[in-house]
Amino acid sequence: MTEDELIAAIQALCVCHPERRRRTILGIGDDAAVWQPSRSHRSVISSDVLVEGVHFRRDLLSLEESGWRAMAANLSDLAAMGARPVLATVALAVPAAQASHEILDVYRGIAACAHRYDIEIAGGDLSRSEAIAIAITVVGEVRATGYKTRYGGRPGDVLAVTGELGAARAGLLGEEQGQEAFRRPQPRLAEGRFLGASVNVDAMMDCSDGLSTDVRRLCVASGCGAILDTIPVAAAARVAAARTGDDPDRFVLGAGEDFELIVAVRPRAFPHVSGAFGKRFARPLQRIGTLRREPGIEWKGAPLESSGWDHFG
Amino acid sequence: MTEDELIAAIQALCVCHPERRRRTILGIGDDAAVWQPSRSHRSVISSDVLVEGVHFRRDLLSLEESGWRAMAANLSDLAAMGARPVLATVALAVPAAQASHEILDVYRGIAACAHRYDIEIAGGDLSRSEAIAIAITVVGEVRATGYKTRYGGRPGDVLAVTGELGAARAGLLGEEQGQEAFRRPQPRLAEGRFLGASVNVDAMMDCSDGLSTDVRRLCVASGCGAILDTIPVAAAARVAAARTGDDPDRFVLGAGEDFELIVAVRPRAFPHVSGAFGKRFARPLQRIGTLRREPGIEWKGAPLESSGWDHFG
Repeated sequence: MTEDELIAAIQALCVCHPERRRRTILGIGDDAAVWQPSRSHRSVISSDVLVEGVHFRRDLLSLEESGWRAMAANLSDLAAMGARPVLATVALAVPAAQASHEILDVYRGIAACAHRYDIEIAGGDLSRSEAIAIAITVVGEVRATGYKTRYGGRPGDVLAVTGELGAARAGLLGEEQGQEAFRRPQPRLAEGRFLGASVNVDAMMDCSDGLSTDVRRLCVASGCGAILDTIPVAAAARVAAARTGDDPDRFVLGAGEDFELIVAVRPRAFPHVSGAFGKRFARPLQRIGTLRREPGIEWKGAPLESSGWDHFG
Repeated sequence: MTEDELIAAIQALCVCHPERRRRTILGIGDDAAVWQPSRSHRSVISSDVLVEGVHFRRDLLSLEESGWRAMAANLSDLAAMGARPVLATVALAVPAAQASHEILDVYRGIAACAHRYDIEIAGGDLSRSEAIAIAITVVGEVRATGYKTRYGGRPGDVLAVTGELGAARAGLLGEEQGQEAFRRPQPRLAEGRFLGASVNVDAMMDCSDGLSTDVRRLCVASGCGAILDTIPVAAAARVAAARTGDDPDRFVLGAGEDFELIVAVRPRAFPHVSGAFGKRFARPLQRIGTLRREPGIEWKGAPLESSGWDHFG
């Protein structure tokens, strides 16, 4: 079973009687779930767990940086829904041998990212374990009409990303220019809210598992396929690919840990949306391709295999 | 540093500027956090992580039972706030060698408990790790006047618990009668909402870490002490204590994993509250002692040391 197949099986287990589904508007399978605490409001919730040795290694990332990254990964899921952060809970499991100052280092990184993006840490849990595991849940809020899913893409939509990709992977491989993207990734919260507010954005998600994996997920969820034509390669990724002898585009297609957003935009509105985006954020909304009716992803005239992150593939 | 000291240090790190504290009414340190999604509503959130080898062992608890217990532990935190369950997210970390059916076994237990207590599983995350870690976040709702904290206890209040204690520990030790309490613990959600709705209940929390630890936490949070006089010992705990040669009261004072609630009730109202509780739930609200001005816990005329669960003590 791949991770996506396993998630489908879990979804089937967790589904509840329709008459009990009172509050949840969007459930398992998107970046975050949406519910309705009162008639006029929508809340958004997302949980992510980062495990030492799987998502981060101490020889590559300090404990403080791991904490920042864990919080940023969760905030990126709120960004992908177009939501504003409200509060977070942090469940931390650490080896008993871990000194208190090391536990506090992880928290220092979590808190720094939380303060930067104005989300309050409201609670959590602390436990022993063999390896450090950081499980964060974030809650956000969004206007009833302002949230986006990965289900809404339509054939003909322009696929675009909010920035160049591959810098985090380059940073992981030791590239100087990619260090900031690797160590202190910036979730695209303002970008997500801007794009979430546009009626011309049909679908949105983050691309933290790599472009080839995440474009496929958006396509499967939206019941369509895509033709990719341009990959915006970050400068750091270009340098790292040259050093390792990889093709820069291939390097980026399989590069996870970037927190840019992927959006599907109505084709006629794309010039307007990308123009407004450019004015607001002083960098372009980068067109990467088009959604099509036929399933599967095409890249340079050939089917594209998923080369991103799969925990169980 | 003990777990409580570490939590205080974390609290200091996470505290945010007062002008940013817009929504959160109750933060770190209680069973759950409370926030205000809209003027008329209060939402409650709590996260707990259960780790294999720390909170459960496969030779003692099946994967399905571990899943049930993880969800029940989280629901117990909602019960302690007097909240109604709304939705949950589940972040599961499992060894890569774990077969899909084992992962689904954990989820089966989580889903069974979720369906039993009418909470919808709305999302989550799946990751590799060395040992199984189950991190669950639950969201509930409560009327603005209906939630209880552990801070509200006053000297003179009657301390009481919603049921007999020690059955889960007896079950862990192999006692037949304690198996249900150990394997399928029942969070006291209806009891929590009933007690939460009473103006005569000043404080409430669950006693999942053992009576001696949790009564102390309630006292420290409320700025007072307590005299304990009666410990309601479950039949299974009595049998287990006799077998191991322990004093039954001592056995219970250090017994965690029970999900009964501890409440502090205004003394003049106690007969009325416990009478109504008995009628509604067909078992008594068990008086265990009294809050006092002087700090510290007294038991049988001597200071009581904390003998419950501390991850880092």
